[in-house]
Amino acid sequence: MPISLTTDFGLDDVYAGVMKGVILSINPEAQIIDLTHGIQPQHIEQAAFILHANYQFFPEGTIHVVVVDPGVGSERAVLGVKTSDYLFVAPDNGVLKYIFEAHPQAEIYKLNNSRYWLQPTSQTFHGRDIFAPVAAHLSRGVELSHVGKVFPGFERGQIDHPEKESRQITGRILFFDRFGNGITNIQRSQILGSKVQIHVKELTVTGIQNIYADVKPGAGLAYIGSSQTLEIAVGHGNARDTFNLKAGDPVVVLLDS
Amino acid sequence: MPISLTTDFGLDDVYAGVMKGVILSINPEAQIIDLTHGIQPQHIEQAAFILHANYQFFPEGTIHVVVVDPGVGSERAVLGVKTSDYLFVAPDNGVLKYIFEAHPQAEIYKLNNSRYWLQPTSQTFHGRDIFAPVAAHLSRGVELSHVGKVFPGFERGQIDHPEKESRQITGRILFFDRFGNGITNIQRSQILGSKVQIHVKELTVTGIQNIYADVKPGAGLAYIGSSQTLEIAVGHGNARDTFNLKAGDPVVVLLDS
Amino acid sequence: MPISLTTDFGLDDVYAGVMKGVILSINPEAQIIDLTHGIQPQHIEQAAFILHANYQFFPEGTIHVVVVDPGVGSERAVLGVKTSDYLFVAPDNGVLKYIFEAHPQAEIYKLNNSRYWLQPTSQTFHGRDIFAPVAAHLSRGVELSHVGKVFPGFERGQIDHPEKESRQITGRILFFDRFGNGITNIQRSQILGSKVQIHVKELTVTGIQNIYADVKPGAGLAYIGSSQTLEIAVGHGNARDTFNLKAGDPVVVLLDS
Repeated sequence: MPISLTTDFGLDDVYAGVMKGVILSINPEAQIIDLTHGIQPQHIEQAAFILHANYQFFPEGTIHVVVVDPGVGSERAVLGVKTSDYLFVAPDNGVLKYIFEAHPQAEIYKLNNSRYWLQPTSQTFHGRDIFAPVAAHLSRGVELSHVGKVFPGFERGQIDHPEKESRQITGRILFFDRFGNGITNIQRSQILGSKVQIHVKELTVTGIQNIYADVKPGAGLAYIGSSQTLEIAVGHGNARDTFNLKAGDPVVVLLDS
Repeated sequence: MPISLTTDFGLDDVYAGVMKGVILSINPEAQIIDLTHGIQPQHIEQAAFILHANYQFFPEGTIHVVVVDPGVGSERAVLGVKTSDYLFVAPDNGVLKYIFEAHPQAEIYKLNNSRYWLQPTSQTFHGRDIFAPVAAHLSRGVELSHVGKVFPGFERGQIDHPEKESRQITGRILFFDRFGNGITNIQRSQILGSKVQIHVKELTVTGIQNIYADVKPGAGLAYIGSSQTLEIAVGHGNARDTFNLKAGDPVVVLLDS
Repeated sequence: MPISLTTDFGLDDVYAGVMKGVILSINPEAQIIDLTHGIQPQHIEQAAFILHANYQFFPEGTIHVVVVDPGVGSERAVLGVKTSDYLFVAPDNGVLKYIFEAHPQAEIYKLNNSRYWLQPTSQTFHGRDIFAPVAAHLSRGVELSHVGKVFPGFERGQIDHPEKESRQITGRILFFDRFGNGITNIQRSQILGSKVQIHVKELTVTGIQNIYADVKPGAGLAYIGSSQTLEIAVGHGNARDTFNLKAGDPVVVLLDS
């Protein structure tokens, strides 16, 4: 089964590379795919969103490994989560919150059997010493129940869904991409087919643009991103800086269909 | 058959990663190689040059996928091109112009059979929804004639060949690499064995240097790049900025053998 | 057998990608793993350290290819080195010095049989033309003795071990990572279990911190990196710039157990 990797390690260092070495040492047949190593450092919300938007494009049975882990070295658990089609291995910090929501029947384990870890196990690099070897053993068919135990006490995480009342949807900016575009929690399906007006702080945008439309430099812009949610941008610029936006800022959409 | 990927997506985002997920979902045996995801955004000329300089280093039968596609979401076609040794999948925007020139017998198809696309097909991410699945099906042996139809109306692209008269060759700067070195369209074979003097704007360079030769900081420098064409650089600096160069600037080589 | 790649090519260019194309052209079954392409340009010391800290996490039999090669195009040899568990292919510039030290019985060859190189062989891109094809042939089982000849005259390299006298260890900063943290040659095992005071230039640090501990912005910090050596950092800052450190600066550890 393939193993996908999603981390905040970047590619300037060896962290991603040595995880692959460990995986192949345990399962020489493993097929490893980098989803991305470009998650912003310790940005759990971004990782959660991106994983959820993309995991289903991978082959059934893929083991999705997420290492965005500010709590490395603490007592936080490492989770193994089994849905009908996929396995997930991730720290117990809410990074799988959208997966839990979408798959309420998922089986959730705490992967605490150190027999499947590298020894000695460092305090600082669990990607190499826990996540990689555990994923490799799972890809060989080892059962989650051997690698850990059922774990009802996992952190479910907070999902911030937009509120809808009458013709108004109030969502939030979840995070910014590296261009300063604000990714919101408002789904395409919630605004589809309506004429809309969008308010974020002092910015007002009318209508949903095609992402590649010509807009005036400096003008605000709203479009549907490839993850099917509303995004806030600025023509030839950085929306976060231009409009002084922050993650968590409310985004109000007025529908007028 | 291997699939190579050449895009301007960079590696900070998931675009390249999710394309691989899609490919492996369709062909679990696919062998995927990143040629580069570092093409400058929407830089068709750079992608065309780099593809042409490198495609032949891959195994026969490799499917070279290029996603440098300013026209995504418009009506531009997606091409499938078959030469004697390789397949190419790319937008119909001239990015294959050197391939067409080198392989006048190539079979050229418009890959418009949406049965081989992901459904629903987004307007913004054809890499995931068209290029990846089409390449995956081709790598399983599906014929181009099933994925599309012969397409005589493709965009052949403009190739800017140097002009030669008597002892003078006049070429151009095609693009700059990330260090500000100017890559020209003048072939090594055109100047080999001659003493040369090179003029670009106010810059005059005498002789072809070894790329790693010691040159004075700030001094102009000409050498043969690993793609076997003449490149213009500056010692410990950025030639584009130092000499105020632009893509398209004429490069005159005086031969004196 | 897997092939790992460690280079200073970065990922913005095609250099790493085309090496993979060459390898797969020769051995279609090759399994290629990027350890990293993020070595600082021509930084032999960093590459040597990183290779040594990580090579043993790869499957037995892995062919570790290192292309950090300021001498490309000169007469420096390309080495093939066989230890009990691994093969190494690297330029003869000391980048394998820690491997030589750890494996005094290693067999060392000069890989000068150009039959295994790409032809024509460029002067500037031996990664593509020598390292990649040689590694590919070795991964198919070709013996080192066919690819080259025993080479006693290799460059052994200089290893800078810390000096220990009584309760004082004097090591050095070997290099800086991209965050400006100073990686030293002082091993975790040399200071384990002692109370320590550390001096680097004007900086004095008491005790070894957990890397993720809260430290005051701007305050000096010493911790054990994931390669099990002492590292010097600064809270929320760049230690190299803050304390004006240079590679080679002495690091004095006073032990008081």
